Amino acid sequence: MTKIAVAKGDGIGPEIMDAVLSIFQAAQVPLEYEFVDMGKWVFDKGFSNGMTSEAQQTIENLGILFKGPMETPKGKGVKSINVTARKTWNTYANKRVFQTLHGVDTVFSKAGIPIDVTIVRENIEDTYGGVEHMLTPDVALSRRFITRPGSMQVIKYAFEMASKKGARRITCGHKANIMKLTDGLFLECFYEVAKNYPDLKADDVIVDDLCMKLVTRPDTFDVVVLTNLQGDIVSDLCAGLVGGLGFAPSANVGDHISIFEAVHGTAPDIAGKGIANPTALLLSGFSLLQHVGLYDKANMIENALLYTLESGVRTGDFGDRSKPAMNTVEFANAVVKNF
Amino acid sequence: MTKIAVAKGDGIGPEIMDAVLSIFQAAQVPLEYEFVDMGKWVFDKGFSNGMTSEAQQTIENLGILFKGPMETPKGKGVKSINVTARKTWNTYANKRVFQTLHGVDTVFSKAGIPIDVTIVRENIEDTYGGVEHMLTPDVALSRRFITRPGSMQVIKYAFEMASKKGARRITCGHKANIMKLTDGLFLECFYEVAKNYPDLKADDVIVDDLCMKLVTRPDTFDVVVLTNLQGDIVSDLCAGLVGGLGFAPSANVGDHISIFEAVHGTAPDIAGKGIANPTALLLSGFSLLQHVGLYDKANMIENALLYTLESGVRTGDFGDRSKPAMNTVEFANAVVKNF
Ligand SMILES: CC(C)[C@H](C(=O)O)[C@@H](O)C(=O)O
Ligand SMILES: CC(C)[C@H](C(=O)O)[C@@H](O)C(=O)O
Repeated sequence: MTKIAVAKGDGIGPEIMDAVLSIFQAAQVPLEYEFVDMGKWVFDKGFSNGMTSEAQQTIENLGILFKGPMETPKGKGVKSINVTARKTWNTYANKRVFQTLHGVDTVFSKAGIPIDVTIVRENIEDTYGGVEHMLTPDVALSRRFITRPGSMQVIKYAFEMASKKGARRITCGHKANIMKLTDGLFLECFYEVAKNYPDLKADDVIVDDLCMKLVTRPDTFDVVVLTNLQGDIVSDLCAGLVGGLGFAPSANVGDHISIFEAVHGTAPDIAGKGIANPTALLLSGFSLLQHVGLYDKANMIENALLYTLESGVRTGDFGDRSKPAMNTVEFANAVVKNF
Repeated sequence: MTKIAVAKGDGIGPEIMDAVLSIFQAAQVPLEYEFVDMGKWVFDKGFSNGMTSEAQQTIENLGILFKGPMETPKGKGVKSINVTARKTWNTYANKRVFQTLHGVDTVFSKAGIPIDVTIVRENIEDTYGGVEHMLTPDVALSRRFITRPGSMQVIKYAFEMASKKGARRITCGHKANIMKLTDGLFLECFYEVAKNYPDLKADDVIVDDLCMKLVTRPDTFDVVVLTNLQGDIVSDLCAGLVGGLGFAPSANVGDHISIFEAVHGTAPDIAGKGIANPTALLLSGFSLLQHVGLYDKANMIENALLYTLESGVRTGDFGDRSKPAMNTVEFANAVVKNF
């Protein structure tokens, strides 16, 4: 039985993780879990990268981490635990799938525009290297690095994934008209990899234009691959199109370790109340199940979730406010009932 | 009588500029025009920055340039004429107003979500400095500069503008959680200037979150100020919210020279056919009229345009496709009839 590391995270993390794992259990998902200590609460105990060395060891041994949201510790020079984790394990591709969910109303669903966009974001390079300094007290400089190997690995991943899922189109978002060398290099890599996938329609769109098109005709896009910061921005834009981060799964994929996480916040205001929405974490769980080859279980749970949402079941943060909201456990049970 | 420089630009530029100036004439706008040679067609004659020295002299003497779209010449190392113009004259603030226009259907107008967002984008710094090089054939580096004087001047402009127009809220969009020094400096300047405007609600939102919120609750924003590239992306996103670049005016404001322009493309496919939509350029014209203090004329023409759009008048690129489309001249005449 495959064993994975699980970090419940901060704030609402433990509640939604428990809910998701209860759904997995009811579905008889053949996974074993090793719970690891990671999050702001671990940072607060003096572990500067937000995890104990046992946790790190376990994650590296098992190769898969399923994690709840984690709070970024405050303070100058302190890095986000999420970003540190991506770097530590070179999870170079961040895949986020954004799909219209019936029952989650948005202006697009109301307008009858179906959304099914997968964003693949380079996860390590760009200004995320954090190389910055003050040239003078009045001039700040940040270095933006784009490398060929770094670009190739994420672009290869994106094409392979797109080809496997039978995508219609794969698009490179970039700003190579201004950043001719850095984004130019990324774009060059894109078309180099494209040569190996003659059946896949590959094209590129300048990132500002891409954002305009995503808010007018999101249904024309399928897989979009971008550099780190542009991918960060476009991912959140797409999350908005389908109802917000509460409906946005995320997979950080590397050659040795992959991280599946909810990217929404830790919602300290409702933490401990048992009313949080576990949907984003559950959607990330599907990615995880697919990643380890448990396609049947993934489909079974996904169908149950879609059916549950469609039937009007909701937590307090979305859906028809005139209907009663379920709490986290009730929501999980409703999904299980629809297996 | 105030005299301004006018550059008709490339592609559909001359047609839409003629249409806008015919509307100005019918409205008896007290402006004199000096037409200058600027655009890709001038670049093609051997002027590397896309304008003759007479044009540059005239623009610098008059201080105001009204311009149609211009094509970016192809070729390595060749810069966009628009971007060069912004830099040459230090037009440090790019102001774009995005408003719901009745008659221009979008998913947001259909959902009854009214939009009235003004983006102020820093127009000179950031990676737009174009300082890039290849460290090795496989590693590209781009430098991102943010300076205190550069940030202060655009932020001061944004607050002054917001305060004059009675804005409810002014928001700084940034990624200071990752680019702590560069965006941190911009954010610091924002809150420093905010102290002088105690009546204006000033807050900040991380740029990815901002994009998510703009596609879900755009009606909660009023004035948003950002660094150059993030502002570029967010501007186009907002253009999409109101129907596309065909409905997006743009003003590049500096201390000595200001440029009012349509930011959409030159549409070579329909150039010369007389069917282009002059709305974006006309909206930029309002900004120009306000800038020179001709508020009455600006209001009169704006009301006529809004009424015209609301009544279902359209060009081929928007509106109810079951109704006939007007050409550029007919559209201009329809606006004039509604004075
Ligand atoms: C929290 C933040 C550092 C992070 C990022 O910028 O990558 C977040 O926006 C994300 O997308 O996961
Ligand atoms: C054409 C391009 C260089 C320009 C920019 O990036 O500023 C455009 O996107 C704009 O917003 O005016």
